[in-house]
Formats: sequence, C-alpha cells, structure tokens
Amino acid sequence: MSKVTPISGFLEWLPAQRYAEQMVLDVIAEVFELHGFEPINTRAVEPVERLVGKGGDADKEIYAVSRLAADESDAKEAGLGLHFDLTVPFARYVLENSGKLTFPFRRYQIQPVWRGERPQAGRYREFVQADIDIVDGGELPFHYEVELPLVIADVFKRLPIGDFRIQVNNRKIPEGFYRGLGIDDITGTLRIVDKLDKIGPAKVKELLVAEGVSDENADKVLALAAISTSDSSFVEKVRALGVEHEILDEGLAQLKAVIDTAAEHAPGLLVAELKIARGLDYYTGTVYETQLVGDEAYGSICSGGRYDALASDGKKTYPGVGLSIGVSRLLAKLIGERGLAATRPTPTAVLVAVTDEASRDESMRVAAALRARGIPTLVSPKAAKFGKQIQFADRRGIPFVWFLGGESDGVPNADQVKDLRSGDQSDADRHTWTLPAEDAQPTLHLPG
Amino acid sequence: MSKVTPISGFLEWLPAQRYAEQMVLDVIAEVFELHGFEPINTRAVEPVERLVGKGGDADKEIYAVSRLAADESDAKEAGLGLHFDLTVPFARYVLENSGKLTFPFRRYQIQPVWRGERPQAGRYREFVQADIDIVDGGELPFHYEVELPLVIADVFKRLPIGDFRIQVNNRKIPEGFYRGLGIDDITGTLRIVDKLDKIGPAKVKELLVAEGVSDENADKVLALAAISTSDSSFVEKVRALGVEHEILDEGLAQLKAVIDTAAEHAPGLLVAELKIARGLDYYTGTVYETQLVGDEAYGSICSGGRYDALASDGKKTYPGVGLSIGVSRLLAKLIGERGLAATRPTPTAVLVAVTDEASRDESMRVAAALRARGIPTLVSPKAAKFGKQIQFADRRGIPFVWFLGGESDGVPNADQVKDLRSGDQSDADRHTWTLPAEDAQPTLHLPG
Repeated sequence: MSKVTPISGFLEWLPAQRYAEQMVLDVIAEVFELHGFEPINTRAVEPVERLVGKGGDADKEIYAVSRLAADESDAKEAGLGLHFDLTVPFARYVLENSGKLTFPFRRYQIQPVWRGERPQAGRYREFVQADIDIVDGGELPFHYEVELPLVIADVFKRLPIGDFRIQVNNRKIPEGFYRGLGIDDITGTLRIVDKLDKIGPAKVKELLVAEGVSDENADKVLALAAISTSDSSFVEKVRALGVEHEILDEGLAQLKAVIDTAAEHAPGLLVAELKIARGLDYYTGTVYETQLVGDEAYGSICSGGRYDALASDGKKTYPGVGLSIGVSRLLAKLIGERGLAATRPTPTAVLVAVTDEASRDESMRVAAALRARGIPTLVSPKAAKFGKQIQFADRRGIPFVWFLGGESDGVPNADQVKDLRSGDQSDADRHTWTLPAEDAQPTLHLPG
Repeated sequence: MSKVTPISGFLEWLPAQRYAEQMVLDVIAEVFELHGFEPINTRAVEPVERLVGKGGDADKEIYAVSRLAADESDAKEAGLGLHFDLTVPFARYVLENSGKLTFPFRRYQIQPVWRGERPQAGRYREFVQADIDIVDGGELPFHYEVELPLVIADVFKRLPIGDFRIQVNNRKIPEGFYRGLGIDDITGTLRIVDKLDKIGPAKVKELLVAEGVSDENADKVLALAAISTSDSSFVEKVRALGVEHEILDEGLAQLKAVIDTAAEHAPGLLVAELKIARGLDYYTGTVYETQLVGDEAYGSICSGGRYDALASDGKKTYPGVGLSIGVSRLLAKLIGERGLAATRPTPTAVLVAVTDEASRDESMRVAAALRARGIPTLVSPKAAKFGKQIQFADRRGIPFVWFLGGESDGVPNADQVKDLRSGDQSDADRHTWTLPAEDAQPTLHLPG
C-alpha cells in the first residue's frame, strides 16, 4: 500500500472544521426553506452528452465515470460523467419530472460537484454548492429576479462572514446599449468586456477596435462598464451616454426594480455593477456575482442569473433564475484562513467519568438520561484517574465532566458535574440538570 | 439531445420525498451527536489501489473516474475511483490525519457511495450510507462493541420504521467452536455457513462434508448456526453441544455482555443470532445485522462489526468497530413502499397572497416579518384571483394563506390568515402571529 497523501484539489476538513461546515450548511438550508424553497438531490452522474457543451469550456473539466471491470454489456450504456454544477442536473430533473412537479417550482439543492481542472487557490476538483432556482413552464415573472438576491442576502446576514456585496447587472443593458451603438456581435463584445478586470480598459479598447468597433463606440462601451452605483442613479449615468434602444430601456427598468427593492429589504448589500456579464453563460436577464468586502480579488462566492432556455424538451421550455453559493470556496476562506469555527469544537457537551469498569453501566445510565433530554454525552473510554479523564474531555473541548456520586455507608451521594472552563463543581441530578443556554446550541464565531 | 430517462440504479426522490429523507438524515445525525460522535466527510474518490481488494468482490464494483479530456500529464496521476463504502475512506482518513485526531476517535459520516454492480430491488449504484465508527491506536476496549448497537437502536427508536431487530454474533464463537471441533479452515467453513439462508441446511451440510468435515462435526456446525435467543440463554445452548475452546469462551463472554447490556438499555431489540458471519469481511469480533420485522427477506438495513487491522500504516494499527445504516436501502422501503412522509409535503407553512402587483412589496414585507420569526413563507407568484392563490397553496400542501388587510377610507384593516384545512379565517398580526405547535415543526409519519 502506497503512502497516504492528500489528492490535490480535494479538500477534507478535520472534525471540528467539518462541524463548522455543517453548521453553515444548516443555516443555508434553513434560510432557503424560510423562503419557500423545497429540497431536492440529484444523482452524481449524468450522461456525458448532457454535460458536454453546457457553460463555457466545462467540457474540458468533466470527470468521466466507468466500471473498472467493464464488460461488453457496458458498451450499451451511455457514457456517464460526474456533474460539474447543480444547474444542468436540475434542468434535466425538471424535464424528467415535469408531470409531477408544481410550477413555478422553487428548489434548493446542496451537493458536491466535480471538475477535472487544474487546482489553484480557492478552486477545487470537488466542491460543495448550495443552489436555489425558480423555474416556470413557458413564462417566468420578472419579480423572481428581484427576489432571489434577497434570499442570498438573508443567508449571508446570518453567517459571520463579514461584509459582502452582491453585484447585479442585467444582460439586456449591454445588449441594448451595444445594439443602440450599432454593434451587432453582442456575445463577442461581452466576451471582451468580461476581461476588463484581468487586462484593464486600455487592452479591452484595443481588442474592441480590432473587432471593428469605432474608437468612439469603444469608449462608450468602456464608459458603460465603468458604471457602478449603490442606488438607482446608474440609470441617469447610462442615459448621459446618449444611447437609445428599447432593450436597453427594458434592462434599465429591470435593474432599477432589483436595486430599489433591495434598498428596502437588504439596504447596502446590492450594487448595480454594469461590467458584470457572467462570461459566456446561458443568462438572458439579471446576472449576479457576490464578493467578500476586502477580499474582492478572491472572486465571486455566489453567482447566477436569469436563463430562458436551459431546460427544454423540444416542446416546452422552462425559463428560470438561479443563484449558487460556492460553499467550499467560501469556507476555504472562512474556515481555512479566517478561522471560522463553532463555539466549541465538538458536538459533545458532557463526558461522564467512569469510576471503575464495574460501574460503567451506571455511567451509561447517566449518559442515557442526559441524552434523553437532548444533551450530547460521551462515556469515558477508560476508568482512568479522574485527572486523566478530565484531560481527555479538555483535549476534545468537551466543557462538562460528570462524576457518579456513588454511595457512603449504603447511602447514595449526589452526582457532581464540573465545568472545565470555570473549574466550578457542584451537585447535579441526571434527570433535571440542563446545559447553560450558551452551551445548549453551539454557534459559529470568527476569532478576534 | 436524447430523451430524458432515468438511469437504472440511480434513485432520485421527488421534493416531498427528499424532504422526508432529509428529516430522516437529520434524526440520524442528531442521535449520532447525542452519543458523542463527531462529523467528518471524505472526498468521493480514492486511489483505485486503495479500493481494490477491500471487502469481498468489491473490486468488480468500483467506478473508475478519469478526466474526459485526459492528456499526458494525467498519466502521472494515480487512477482514481469512487468510494464503494465509507469504511475504506475512513481508514485512510485516520491514517492521513492520525497526528491531528484524538483517540479513541468517534466519527459519524453520512454520504453517498457508488457501486457499479447490476441494480436489483433494494440495491442501487448510488446510495447514501450513515456510518459510525470508533477507532483507537493500538488497543480498542471491548465495551465499544456493547455500546455501538445501542446507538443504532436509539436512532431507529426515533424513526417511524416499525419493529426492527439487531442480530448480533461474535466471530470468535464460530472460530473457537470450529477449532474445538478440529476444523482448521475457519474462513472456508464460515463462507459455507454464510449460505445457509440461501441454500438451506441440507446443502450446507453437503458442502461441509465435501470439504472434509465429518458428518458429526457438520451437524454440530449447523446446530451452532441454528441458535438464536433474545437473552443470554444462547450460552447454555452452545455449551450443550459439548465443544470446548478458549476462543469460544471469549466469544461467548463477549456476546453475553452485549446481549445483557442491551437487555437493560434497549430491551427486546437485540438478539444473539449465531449464524451471522458478515461474509468474507475484515471483522474479528462482534458482528451486527439489522432487519425490519416482517420484512426479513429484504435483508440487512444496518450492518457492521469489530475489525482489527483495517487501518494500518505499517507501523501503527488502529482497531475499530463500526456500524453502517443503509439509508437509501431503508428509505426505498419506507418512503418508496410504505409511504413514509413528512406531516406536510413542503417546508413552507404560509403563502402570502398578492392583492395586486402594485402591493407585491407589501406582501414581501409580511413574508419578511414572518420569516424573521422562523416561519417558512412564500409570496404568491401572481396577483391572481384569491381562489386561484388558495388553490396554489392547497396543491402544494401549504397549510396557511395570508391576506393583506389593505385599507378602507384611509383606515388600515387587519391582515387575515386562513387555515386551508379547517377553512377558518381570522385577523392576524404579522409581527405576533405564530404557527400552531403541530405546524411549527413538521415530523415524519407513516400512513394508516
């Protein structure tokens, strides 16, 4: 057997970190349910033909799956691959179950996804995403594009992640603007503008001009992309550029509705950022990215947008809008770098000491009584000296140690419980003792 | 794009079923934490060399994983495969992190696993397992073999799964018994006895005799396997067969300890079943299987045992004991066949009606107020007629519909809330109204 070494790009947490991760996932799921989303999980695999060509260069990143001991009968089966996001499987799930779902269908889905790309900081080959989407059959009302970022803002407000900012744009704004300028190649232009953060405005202008955009128009394209406002004043700034098109009007009105509604329901959290385009994806309306304030260069931790044609069976099309939290990406920063942790490193609250092996049964009875009232309890592994058993609890971050009272001259003594942090030790009844409120439910905290 | 069809062996639930599954998983995790287990997740992939040859014919069932666009640099990477259980990855995790873990280490792990075998009833190519294991460095005290089935009994007692029975044996009993009879090929004999349920005692005897076991000894082997008691009377029954060996004595004492302790802590749930062998696996002490009473032929829904040498880095060995709940297998029966469901099919408790699109903002304010107090709330997708909006809620199983009071002659009216089940409608304040207790937290129930 070879030496045990980590596999690059596959993140695994130690138990205390996994405990914190699970708490984050619980908060995410709870808020999604508060907002009326229903849970689904999809299988890890999809037919490769369904994965290839969906979303930029994702086809290069697909992990193919095949039986190690494949035989002839396998050749008949379609090639399978691991899903690289939760949107493509969701679109397939909607088509497969359309007769059994009620529309508009709101689902959340929290699962790992896999991409075979070269790992780099903040990017993994296996990572957890937490997605919400709303799809409808035929038409999808615009107001969902307003609602969805408010759900994400509600999630992030409940997590100790520091300040964050949801950047919003509407694909109709650049499209209408470019059309108003007489530029026909919308996708090509968007693709160039999308490089703004990487190569800077001068290079972007060069590329635009090389594609046949006039010097004046290239300046206007850059001026549009430079607009960023935390209120609806972006509308005037766009108007000041003097470009007119009905698609532009529609985009501005929609983005204004998103920003105005957010100003009431999530003040200060959304900004209109007119350079956001979400690359080559399938988005057709509002698009979103989310950044940690002070860590903008880390990239987006939650992205998505409105799509019109992702789920279609040829007869019926299901437009939708979705947002995906990059949980592993977010937690690599929060847990891995900032030290986000639970208020204690283990779910266990009490260690019941074992006086001697003959009385282990009695210690188990104490544990059963505490557990029956919801107190996570462990029985000591060995009837070692009490000092050692206390050390055992202390090393694990278990805050309380319980000692059997035993008896003196045939008269039972009260049990005792010791708080390892204060050192206080006092009589306790296994059937009535409760945890202090701050210990009953560990929460998340950032150090410092 | 080809037609969307399910892939054989990959189970997916509809949202209401997935909601019930998540509740089951929450109960399992909660009970595991109550018993002092810490959470871990491991990556989905392991080096193929680490997967092959662990556990029977599992090597035939491994799904290999490779980049679809593999290039030369990939050849340098070890071949990867999807894990087929959670024990092999756990053993690797322990070795990889041994310096950072505190021993005895108790972990729980709830994740999907994959096996490329031909699907059949109750067997899947992708399925969720929920495992607990306790490992220690060097020596593992026996009392954990007593404790572990009590944790599982505690899980199953909190789930509406009907009657169940945990069957327990100790590998030392057949081993010592066979040695006492002078049979040397312990593994070969166990392998034959393991076929008892499939081929019956007459065929088993034939096979044993064919392997050179005497007629009299074969009868004794069968007599041992036939012993099944719900108390420790199995000890006398074994003794009555007149076989002596020190390993047998040790096995009997250990199994008696498990059964006696269970009689107090989980009365009626454990039986000593001396035919249980867990096939060709790596078990060395207590072994467990679990059956649904009345559905015995469905097979085990929770299995495991004591192992001594699964995790070893050549220098140090970590013996352990573990049990694994076959969650998908269990839920295919409970949700798929028996109709186990949540008390309502959706997390959502309230639909806020929209009077007209102009007042959608006000409906969103109501929803925000209710959510702030933990009430899962959805805003109606359309300002349709109230009858239609009520129907929308009803079709989804949302029990309450909230109506804005609006105002008459400039004076605001109270909001109203309607219980769709009773038809009652009454005034309600968005900042104080609470859900009836039975609606606040949906639970699991079996129909009928």
